[in-house]
Amino acid sequence: MNLDYIIPNEWSIIEEGFNPDHVKSSESIFSIGNGAMGQRANFEEHYSGATFQGSYIAGVYYPDKTRVGWWKNGYPEYFAKVLNAPSWIGIHITINNEKLDLFTCKNVADFKRELNMKEGWLSRSFTATLKNDIQIQVEAKRFLSLDLDELGAIEYNITPVNADATITFQPYIDAGIRNEDTNWEDKFWDTLNVSHENHQAFIQAKTMKTHFYTCTFMESQLLIDGKSVLIEPIITADANSASFSYEYKVKKGETYTINKFGGYTVDRNHDKNQLIPAAKAVLKKATKLGFKTLLENQKAAWQNIWNLADITIKGDVKAQQGIRFNIFQLNQTYLGKDSRLNIGPKGFTGEKYGGSTYWDTEAYCIPFYMATKDQNVAKTLLEYRYNHLDKAIENAQKLGFKNGAALYPMVTMNGEECHNEWEITFEEIHRNGAIAYAIYNYHRFTGDYSYIPEKGLEVLIGIARFWHQRANFSSVKQQYVILGVTGPNEYENNVNNNWYTNYMAKWCIDYALENIQKIESEYTTDFTRIMNKTKLSKAEMQEWQAVSTNMYFPESKEHEVYLQQDGFLDKELITVKDLDKSQRPINQKWSWDRILRSPYIKQADVLQGFYFFEDHFTQEELEKHFDFYEPFTVHESSLSPCVHSIQAAKLGRMEQAYQFYLRTSRLDLDDYNHEVEEGLHITSMAGTWMSIVEGFGGMRVRDNMLTFKPQIPKQWEAFSFKINFRNQILKVNVCQNQTHFELEGDRDLQILVHDKRVTISPNNLITV
Amino acid sequence: MNLDYIIPNEWSIIEEGFNPDHVKSSESIFSIGNGAMGQRANFEEHYSGATFQGSYIAGVYYPDKTRVGWWKNGYPEYFAKVLNAPSWIGIHITINNEKLDLFTCKNVADFKRELNMKEGWLSRSFTATLKNDIQIQVEAKRFLSLDLDELGAIEYNITPVNADATITFQPYIDAGIRNEDTNWEDKFWDTLNVSHENHQAFIQAKTMKTHFYTCTFMESQLLIDGKSVLIEPIITADANSASFSYEYKVKKGETYTINKFGGYTVDRNHDKNQLIPAAKAVLKKATKLGFKTLLENQKAAWQNIWNLADITIKGDVKAQQGIRFNIFQLNQTYLGKDSRLNIGPKGFTGEKYGGSTYWDTEAYCIPFYMATKDQNVAKTLLEYRYNHLDKAIENAQKLGFKNGAALYPMVTMNGEECHNEWEITFEEIHRNGAIAYAIYNYHRFTGDYSYIPEKGLEVLIGIARFWHQRANFSSVKQQYVILGVTGPNEYENNVNNNWYTNYMAKWCIDYALENIQKIESEYTTDFTRIMNKTKLSKAEMQEWQAVSTNMYFPESKEHEVYLQQDGFLDKELITVKDLDKSQRPINQKWSWDRILRSPYIKQADVLQGFYFFEDHFTQEELEKHFDFYEPFTVHESSLSPCVHSIQAAKLGRMEQAYQFYLRTSRLDLDDYNHEVEEGLHITSMAGTWMSIVEGFGGMRVRDNMLTFKPQIPKQWEAFSFKINFRNQILKVNVCQNQTHFELEGDRDLQILVHDKRVTISPNNLITV
Repeated sequence: MNLDYIIPNEWSIIEEGFNPDHVKSSESIFSIGNGAMGQRANFEEHYSGATFQGSYIAGVYYPDKTRVGWWKNGYPEYFAKVLNAPSWIGIHITINNEKLDLFTCKNVADFKRELNMKEGWLSRSFTATLKNDIQIQVEAKRFLSLDLDELGAIEYNITPVNADATITFQPYIDAGIRNEDTNWEDKFWDTLNVSHENHQAFIQAKTMKTHFYTCTFMESQLLIDGKSVLIEPIITADANSASFSYEYKVKKGETYTINKFGGYTVDRNHDKNQLIPAAKAVLKKATKLGFKTLLENQKAAWQNIWNLADITIKGDVKAQQGIRFNIFQLNQTYLGKDSRLNIGPKGFTGEKYGGSTYWDTEAYCIPFYMATKDQNVAKTLLEYRYNHLDKAIENAQKLGFKNGAALYPMVTMNGEECHNEWEITFEEIHRNGAIAYAIYNYHRFTGDYSYIPEKGLEVLIGIARFWHQRANFSSVKQQYVILGVTGPNEYENNVNNNWYTNYMAKWCIDYALENIQKIESEYTTDFTRIMNKTKLSKAEMQEWQAVSTNMYFPESKEHEVYLQQDGFLDKELITVKDLDKSQRPINQKWSWDRILRSPYIKQADVLQGFYFFEDHFTQEELEKHFDFYEPFTVHESSLSPCVHSIQAAKLGRMEQAYQFYLRTSRLDLDDYNHEVEEGLHITSMAGTWMSIVEGFGGMRVRDNMLTFKPQIPKQWEAFSFKINFRNQILKVNVCQNQTHFELEGDRDLQILVHDKRVTISPNNLITV
Repeated sequence: MNLDYIIPNEWSIIEEGFNPDHVKSSESIFSIGNGAMGQRANFEEHYSGATFQGSYIAGVYYPDKTRVGWWKNGYPEYFAKVLNAPSWIGIHITINNEKLDLFTCKNVADFKRELNMKEGWLSRSFTATLKNDIQIQVEAKRFLSLDLDELGAIEYNITPVNADATITFQPYIDAGIRNEDTNWEDKFWDTLNVSHENHQAFIQAKTMKTHFYTCTFMESQLLIDGKSVLIEPIITADANSASFSYEYKVKKGETYTINKFGGYTVDRNHDKNQLIPAAKAVLKKATKLGFKTLLENQKAAWQNIWNLADITIKGDVKAQQGIRFNIFQLNQTYLGKDSRLNIGPKGFTGEKYGGSTYWDTEAYCIPFYMATKDQNVAKTLLEYRYNHLDKAIENAQKLGFKNGAALYPMVTMNGEECHNEWEITFEEIHRNGAIAYAIYNYHRFTGDYSYIPEKGLEVLIGIARFWHQRANFSSVKQQYVILGVTGPNEYENNVNNNWYTNYMAKWCIDYALENIQKIESEYTTDFTRIMNKTKLSKAEMQEWQAVSTNMYFPESKEHEVYLQQDGFLDKELITVKDLDKSQRPINQKWSWDRILRSPYIKQADVLQGFYFFEDHFTQEELEKHFDFYEPFTVHESSLSPCVHSIQAAKLGRMEQAYQFYLRTSRLDLDDYNHEVEEGLHITSMAGTWMSIVEGFGGMRVRDNMLTFKPQIPKQWEAFSFKINFRNQILKVNVCQNQTHFELEGDRDLQILVHDKRVTISPNNLITV
């Protein structure tokens, strides 16, 4: 680990003591979001130290013109960037005309930051002594409302401790912001209008190029010792910002409070000419309810999420804090309400990766959302890809494929590819497999087949067509090969016959054919519609079948393993433990060619395939492959430890599984990858959930049945989780010697526990 | 071919008729240079149509900050760019107050441009009717002096045809120029001072970052009907430019002439505080000699070059024009006078490729310069790399190599790597082999061994160390392999065991060991010095030997060929002739992944190895490999057709050899690659020379003896060339049925002609 300042606590993330070196890291870690917007934990008041300002609106992006050294045909014109949006949280504060700025105060004492995950709020408190020797005590709290998802609320209390003081709260909104990450220093926002009315201010701004119209708004209420005061503000407005300045002579010991309400209305959800009325409607509700009621509602809304999604761990507070942090951040990022949205790798916590959609969603996030929410949420995520099918077909056409072959983008915001590294963009094509797998996984888990004839099959056909065209027949091997790919392990580029990719390709074709057959016999109307639309012929399907039947898989007879790709054994096979520590992380120490020719694996690759298709392989095969590949794996992807944790658990290696678990669950809290300042690793957080539920819990769905093989790390007394399985909720509580099952539902549930059939009746505790 | 407007002529490049669409192409094709500077054929007078302005000073570059999409460790900080230098050729012209601008004239008739290669000048003539209906006849000529290589001279004549006219010549110099190719729109030049004195003007400017100090200067003489006139100019100067305006009332039929002298003095050759005095010295010589005498001297100097370098072709004027164009441009680019300079792929004709040094120099240019100049020129080119050895060692260290291993840069200006594409920068390591090969080639051709103990061996040791460390032992193959490389065929990236690279690696080690042994026994002082410096041990050499002895080479037993790399036969082996023409050139039509997994070859790869080491293989082996690989070769590199022409000739396939010859020799004149506007392909021009001398002439050096196997394309009556072989000049004149040899020298020369020994005595024509 790299950082170790977060105070262990079961329900909260806590920082104590003010350290300017931690500000940017904490801005990431203490981020808040409500699925519709989110923000880094920037201070409300001015801060002149190092800070990374960020406030983001879901789905509002900018197509930043591609920047490369050497252009390759097929590169997209732009990279879709999540945009730092106009700021609504800001409150300039002056104490006897001196600006409050923690970076320049004489002293900051009792500094505490808390992200209360149970209730969904962020607070900060401190005692500051200004240069003018006035000492103040500050308590600030804010949250982004789950109920009113265009609204955020702040309560900021100042109490002068050692003297009376004239204190000014100057809440402001500001569209004169910039993105840290910009290719060409473009201006991303165009401010259209700044206006104010009574105590409300509005900034209408639109994004350049994409023309998202937004209204950033605010209104404030002032209180003295908890009682409303009316203060006539001094109003300031310029081209990009507006502020109200509320001055009050505060007596020593008196508390001056501002409740600031702010947020965004966006033309994604309103008519672009109605953004101010929409904002007024939000403010009306907010001011009517008031900060305290809104906060109570916030707690209730989070309670509702936790009821299903919580995982408890007894006897290991750091592990408990880690898993809750992961679950909390996932829910802050995506709630499944809007089918146009998806789960960006950094969520609303930073700018890296453009805030777009990767295969992480299908490979890691869907299992989490499927089991901890209504099953419509997972379906919404599937539909996102269905809605992008035409763009995926266009994308494949650009790369020379035809006849409806679909290649889903590596990174996207709107269905168009926006990544620009040939070895990834054009070659990391296994992503197509994860998208098909998610359809299979959804059906397996929910039992809802209807999605496949309705929408899924068209996606499966486009993907199967791609694999059929992408493979070619090798006359020397007399088998089909897939040349020039990058597998999940991005520390290999442009390799031939990546086992995972070939296996995915074969499986995708088989799965498409199996579903075509089923739909032909059971859903004839859908079948006719889809065949008319896709013009799929028997002859074409026979060609697919030939590719699938005769796919080549590299293997080593000597090691009795599938090879990650052709030629893997030609490498100098020195394991990670024999690699000098000074050389790690290799992605920061080595040139790219050295990484590529090394045997080192960034994240599960063959083992990712074994994870997806574990039923296809024996335990002995898993063990052989785990023992062969894990020693070469450097886990320099956030997506790596979780899969290894699950597999180590499956192999009964609980200590190793536990170590992998800690690494995945506290990746950001302890900053394992030395980059938490840039934002959190949101999508891998779903992997953390999997490593408990599927790893330690051994949860699977087989033949329409939930199965478990619970194990518990020796460090823990017990852990529990819930699964929403086909609209019944099963609670699983694993202790050192036994496991308890409890069902919220209306019918009996048959499960397998350690291969033994158990019947659970509703509201009846079963111990196994 | 793409363009076909150049008039065939044996000694000149001629364009007739004014076509604005051809201006940028002609600016490239009619470029002039003198080794120390060069320029595109921009008009002297203002031109408002599409133009690509370029004037370049040898060795004056700018380190443009690297621009990439995704940074990889090891990338250099900058790309060294040839710089568009301040302009000295400009002459604004007004006719009765109307500016002369060919793009806006009412009519341009009798437009002719000529690049006289025999005499080394560029001319332009036309009759223009201005909007004010004045018709003028213009004759302009300019050249860059070979004798005074800081000087250029222009004669510009205007004769009003239909009326008297007030004509103003306003010669100017201007440092307010820009580079077309810039990563970040940086300012590249900083103008320090603009001054004038009498009829002379000077601009002192320095390049940003690299701080090259330059003085751009000019002085003009005015004449009426060939007689000097004194005209008091109006002088204008601003922050970046200076001009003199010479107005004269010219009678109808009278000719108003300006002789403008200009150029650059640079602190690479003078004290930076003495640039103006140096410029004055040049101008003093120039004005004293006058335009006509300078032009006579220019003709004589070019005659001197042609005496040795010319190749004549009878019966095929386009072929004749082509080869002379190639020889002319090579001599305009590099004359071997300055060991700090090298041969940029675009010479002084454009900005692409940064004007830096590539492996082209060793693989293509050295044979040309070796045979057509004093052998010191080739030695100077070798020393260039010797002088960069420390930087090559540093470069290898950055990539993780140690102990004096040297990796020469892919692209360089000063010895530092400045290329930034991982698959090239880090992986196209075969370049190291060409640098060793040039040492071998120099010794083979010149017989001068002294360079190797003096300097060359240290380079060979650095290179051998690199290959030793770069190879690794494959336990499955029980041989040494070289993983993750890009061979000469850049349409494959990150492949394993590129045959050419592995062969080069083995050869480099063997050649280093052979020379170490020879120098140990024959040059003991050098041996001791080098061993002390390099700390090379017997043990290390034994390790080298193990790699060389046990190097792996991919091959196909079925096809009886070496394979370009592991897995080549897995590709879909459709030959180029079966590839739809609409798909070509593939580098403009296909995405990069599709190119990579295709079998298509950009330029000779295995065949490049067969070219370098032809004695290692039988004619039958060459034939098998040529027949296997050429059908997959798309020749989308300018360096491809020449090698294939030589090999086709060797195989007696003269028609094919001839077609390849035309493609290489007229690549730019006929714009085969649709890119001549960007500049000329200078380094591949040396390949054109090779395709006649080594291809049709069959010239080789074996066992210290020149050998020939002359053949002649059926389209030609005869062709002749000269070889400076060990300070004697052999002229070879190949006719349809016989070959004549003539020797300028002082001793008999034994040669082999079609394997028959022939003795040539000086000044005695021998016919075989």
